[in-house]
Formats: sequence, C-alpha cells, structure tokens
Amino acid sequence: MSVNIHPTAIVMPGAELGEEVTIGPYSIIGQVARIGKGTVIGAYCEIGTHAGVLPSSAVEIGTNSVIRSGSVIYQNSVFGEGLKTGHRVTLREGISAGAGLQVGTLSDIQGHCSIGQHVRLHSNVHVGQKSTIGDFVWIFPYVVLTNDPHPPSETMEGCVIEDFAVVATMSTVLPGQIVGRGALVGAMTLVKENVPEDMICVGVPGRIVGSTSKVRFKDNGKSVYPWRRHFHRGYPEEVIARWRHEFSQEDDAK
Amino acid sequence: MSVNIHPTAIVMPGAELGEEVTIGPYSIIGQVARIGKGTVIGAYCEIGTHAGVLPSSAVEIGTNSVIRSGSVIYQNSVFGEGLKTGHRVTLREGISAGAGLQVGTLSDIQGHCSIGQHVRLHSNVHVGQKSTIGDFVWIFPYVVLTNDPHPPSETMEGCVIEDFAVVATMSTVLPGQIVGRGALVGAMTLVKENVPEDMICVGVPGRIVGSTSKVRFKDNGKSVYPWRRHFHRGYPEEVIARWRHEFSQEDDAK
Amino acid sequence: MSVNIHPTAIVMPGAELGEEVTIGPYSIIGQVARIGKGTVIGAYCEIGTHAGVLPSSAVEIGTNSVIRSGSVIYQNSVFGEGLKTGHRVTLREGISAGAGLQVGTLSDIQGHCSIGQHVRLHSNVHVGQKSTIGDFVWIFPYVVLTNDPHPPSETMEGCVIEDFAVVATMSTVLPGQIVGRGALVGAMTLVKENVPEDMICVGVPGRIVGSTSKVRFKDNGKSVYPWRRHFHRGYPEEVIARWRHEFSQEDDAK
Repeated sequence: MSVNIHPTAIVMPGAELGEEVTIGPYSIIGQVARIGKGTVIGAYCEIGTHAGVLPSSAVEIGTNSVIRSGSVIYQNSVFGEGLKTGHRVTLREGISAGAGLQVGTLSDIQGHCSIGQHVRLHSNVHVGQKSTIGDFVWIFPYVVLTNDPHPPSETMEGCVIEDFAVVATMSTVLPGQIVGRGALVGAMTLVKENVPEDMICVGVPGRIVGSTSKVRFKDNGKSVYPWRRHFHRGYPEEVIARWRHEFSQEDDAK
Repeated sequence: MSVNIHPTAIVMPGAELGEEVTIGPYSIIGQVARIGKGTVIGAYCEIGTHAGVLPSSAVEIGTNSVIRSGSVIYQNSVFGEGLKTGHRVTLREGISAGAGLQVGTLSDIQGHCSIGQHVRLHSNVHVGQKSTIGDFVWIFPYVVLTNDPHPPSETMEGCVIEDFAVVATMSTVLPGQIVGRGALVGAMTLVKENVPEDMICVGVPGRIVGSTSKVRFKDNGKSVYPWRRHFHRGYPEEVIARWRHEFSQEDDAK
Repeated sequence: MSVNIHPTAIVMPGAELGEEVTIGPYSIIGQVARIGKGTVIGAYCEIGTHAGVLPSSAVEIGTNSVIRSGSVIYQNSVFGEGLKTGHRVTLREGISAGAGLQVGTLSDIQGHCSIGQHVRLHSNVHVGQKSTIGDFVWIFPYVVLTNDPHPPSETMEGCVIEDFAVVATMSTVLPGQIVGRGALVGAMTLVKENVPEDMICVGVPGRIVGSTSKVRFKDNGKSVYPWRRHFHRGYPEEVIARWRHEFSQEDDAK
C-alpha cells in the first residue's frame, strides 16, 4: 500500500488508511480511524480520540481531505470527501458532515450535530452540540452557536442554520434559533429570534432590518445576494453549473 | 511505581508522579511537576513550563485529574483534585484553584488569579491576571475577564465573579467589576458596572434588567435560578446533598 | 555552530540557524527557515510551513526572538528582531513585520499583511488578510480585523490601524475601516466608520464619543493618552528616550 507515514507518527493496529494517504510527523492515528484515499494529515494530529462517553466506533474521513497540524478528531463521526481543516481544530464525537466541509484554524465543533454539503466555517467558530447546519452555509470567525436556553441546565436546543445562510464575524446565535435559507446575520449580532429566509439581522439584540436583495456591490450596483450567483471559488464544477443554470433561467424570464 | 508513561514522553528528573498516573505520547513533564495519583495526561502536553518571570517552583496537579492533549500548564500553580481540561488550554503562572475545576478547550487563564471550588469554564474563555473567581461559578465560551482600566497601563484591576454566578457566551467583564453571587450575565453583554447578587445584566453596555428569580423553564414554569436547585451533573455527592438540604428546608418553610 | 537542537526536533536540510539558536522538542524546522541568532523556539512548533499557494520561499525570523510552543509560522514572511509569540499562534504567508512584534497565545495572522515596529497583539487576536498595522499599535484579546465587505465575495478591503492606536477587547473592525493614529476603540465595539486621530469609538455600532485626551487616571487625574507618555515597559531604550524628549518639549512649551 503506497501510504506515506512519517517515522515518528503512531498508527495503531486496526486503523484503515486508503491509498496515497500521508501522515505527518508526531501524529497519532487510532485503531478506529478510516481515512480515505489521498488524504493528507499534518503534524501533531490525533484521529480517533475516544471521549469515553459513547461506545468506541469508527471515525470516517473522506477521500482527498487535508487535516492541518494540531487537529483533534474524535471517534463516532463521518466526514464526506474533501474535508479541509485549518490548524488545531477540534471535531468531537457524533458529527455527520457532507462533502467539502471546511473548518478554519482553532474552530471547535462540539459534536452531536449535523452538517450539510460544502459548508465553510472560518477560523475560531464554535458549534455547540445539537446544531444543524444546512448546505453551502458560511460561518465567519468567532461566531458561537449556543444550545442551552437557561445555563446551566440539562436542556439542549440546537440552532439551525439553513442552506446558503451567512453568519458574519463575532455573532452569537441563541439556543434554538433558526437562521433561514439565504439569510444574512451581520457582524457582532446577537440572534435572539428566528431570521426569516433571505432577510438580514443585525445588532445587539439582533433586529430584522430588511431583505438581502437590497445589498449591492459598490462598484457595479449588482445584488450581492444570493451570493451563489457570483461567488464560485472552490465549489465542484457540477454545483457551479447548477447555480449558473438557475440564474440564467431567471435572467431569461426577465 | 505503577505509572504508565508513553515511550515518546519526556519526563524530566525531579518530576513527581503519583501512582497510576498516565502520560501520553510526546508530552513533556518538567522537573517541578507534582502530579497526583490517577491523573491522566494526554498527548503533546507541557507541564511545568517556566515563564522565566518568577523563581522556579512547583506546579501541583491534584489526584484523578484529566489533562487533554496540547495543554500547557506553567510552574507556580496549585490545582485541587479532579482538574479537567479540554484540548490546548493554557494555564499560566500563579494560579490557585480548588477541586473540580473544569477548563474547556482553548481556554487561557493568564495566571496570578484565584479560583474556588468546582468552577466550570467552557471553551475559549480568557481569564485575565488578578481575576478572582468564587465557588461553583460557570463561565461560557468566548467570555473575557479583563483587568486594565486604561490600556495599555501598569494598572491591573481584576474582576470578581462570586459564588454560583453565571456568565454567558461572548460577554466581556470590564476591569474591577464584580459579578455578584448567583447573578446572571446574559450572552454578548459588556459588564461595565457591578452586577448585584441574584440580578441579571444584559446588553452593550450591560444594564440590570431584573432578578434571576423571574427566569422560568418554558415547560414546567419552575424557577431556573438558583440553578443548583435542579442542576447537579458532575458535582460531588456531598455537595449535591448540601444543596438538596438547603432547598428542602426552604420548601418546608413555605 | 553553537546551536541547541533537541534530539527529537526535525531540522530539514537547508534551514539556516544563527548562533545560539535553541529548537525545542518535537519541533519541525523547514528548509526555507532563516532563524536569527539567539532565537529560542519552543516545543511542537512548525517553522516554514508551505501553504502550496505561493512559490516556496524563505521565512525570516529576526535575532533574539522567542517562539512559544505549538506555533505555526508559514513561508514567505519576514519578521524583525525580537519577535515574541505566545503558544499556538498561527502566522500565515506574506507577513512583513517590523522589530519587536508580540503576538499572544492563539492569535492568528492570516497573512498578506503589513505590520510596523513594536506592535503588540494580545491573546486570540484575528488579523484578516490585507490588514495594515502601523507602529506601536496595541490590539487586545478577541479582536477581529475583517476584510470582506459582503461575505462571501472576492473583494478584500483590509483594515488600517495607525500608529499608537489601541483596540480593546472583543471589538470587530469592519472591512476597509481606518482606526486613526492614537485613537482608542473601546471594548466590544463594532467599528463601522473610520475613527479619526486621537478619538474614542465605542458601542455596537461604534460611535465617536470624544477625544482620548479626556480619559484620565482615577488616582492622579493625569491624562492616560497618549499612552507613550507614561507606559514604557519593554520598549527599546532609544524609543523611550524619543518619547521622553517629545513630552519634555511639550511640557516646556506650557
């Protein structure tokens, strides 16, 4: 098997590594790790950490993933192909994530949550347990998704961030709130109530201030949202083609 | 001595390890480390780091502690039994902490501070120097306790968080402010003035909006606070018994 | 050559280490690293990481620097003498920084930015790409400098933080905003508009509330700002002498 394991890495018996997997210096790969073909794992990573809570079971990391140094990924999770992490991320137990998930440096997904396709979390994002994140969502640095409506308690009400929604830097989403499809949460916003589809929420406490359709580029006056109309970097060809088709039809209808 | 030291760990001469201590791969245990019986230290930890500021002296970690991977604990501190840390925490010099301290992933205690019994800091909490934290305090993610009233200066006025107080996510406590016993600081609050006992402070800037007694569970209408009436997870039996006794007497009095 | 390399460190052929350089346990020094005389690198550091974006080129770290454990420093950057980092900092590609830069634990400089002389970033500061930071700037914990005016987009408008400016804890500076020379951004402020020289901006959204000259020490009634009048800790002798001269002349003129 053409794997590339640094001599200082510790790979436990039972770990399954696909072809052309690379394991960096000083990393530790547990026996329940299932790592897809072509994946590159940097230095000082721990894959398959056991929290001692759930029974031991596999962590699956999809093909062609990149796990940057210092990251910790627990057992009992499944990540689709093309997972990309920054440095020192923490991905705890019970995460189910689709393809193309990006998780920036220092971000911490607390586990027991569901994440859709091609979601992008920037640096230092904190995703509480029981969160539900749709497809093509963007979450920016220092955002916290909470879950306890009256801390500390045994109640856990996860947040829901729907498809194409954008949550900007330093915002907090309070327990159980829904950020609707295509909605925009501005920087440093405290989301206390649901944000309807394609609406903008800003402030502390957050208030709905209008539709995302009113946000326009300074230089050409075109609508910024839905962002998938103009922003395609890094998405798969078939996804981009679908988005192009969606908007060409809309343009034809005008 | 029945200790379990991974062959890649570096344990310096002089370090004192109690029985059944476990040291994970690639960890570094300094000569001034005093690690209590039954404590488990994960991978990539540094215990007994010297900042070069104070004269070198011991760091004591109580029995049955769990230090998760990537954590750095400096010299000149004392932690009671049952310390539990997340990954990559930083505990600097001059910390005196009681039993049962929990410090979440990425949290950073800057040192020279006093922490009571059974305090729980969630992920990514920043505790500035000269802070004083009482017993049974809860501090949630991305909270910052500051200390410099006119930065940058040589003045340091630590915050005081009294027993049973709760500081919710993404709040900042300004220098020298006191969050009173049993008080609640809401999410994303800037605490500019003292919060009296059992009162609620919310907003930017924070304002006192009433008593914690008015917060009730949605499902059964009972009071959420004081939280020790209903939330007992992980506290020692004798503590829970004391709390039960406290409230049974109160209930009898009604 | 009198270097001190721990036997577990990995130093790649081509790396250039000045005299009296110390490399800690388990650190990885890439072939493009150029590390100045007297610099101390702690454990678990990676110096010269390649993001695979730009062509491979050197990272230069000035003399007498201190890089604390768990830090990652990419290629294609230049740091002046006396760089000091906390633990687990991330310094990405394309940073040009003057002498005396301090970067606190967990801070993340995303690269492609310019930083002046003797800048001090405290813990957990996030500096977005295209930021410009002047000389003698202070940035406190959990501050984020953003760059995308309508996320997600291909537009990048970096922030500018001018000489002697101070940005307090938990503030966010929106894309393209300028914090003027000597200005003060209060804790938990959302900077949406430029802050003029020597003015104070506070709130969400941030508003200009007056001049820094009105901030006075409680004990002696003297002006806090410009802070260089009274705060000299850690700056080079010649810098302190210049500041003393500046204010003695001003005092003489009164």
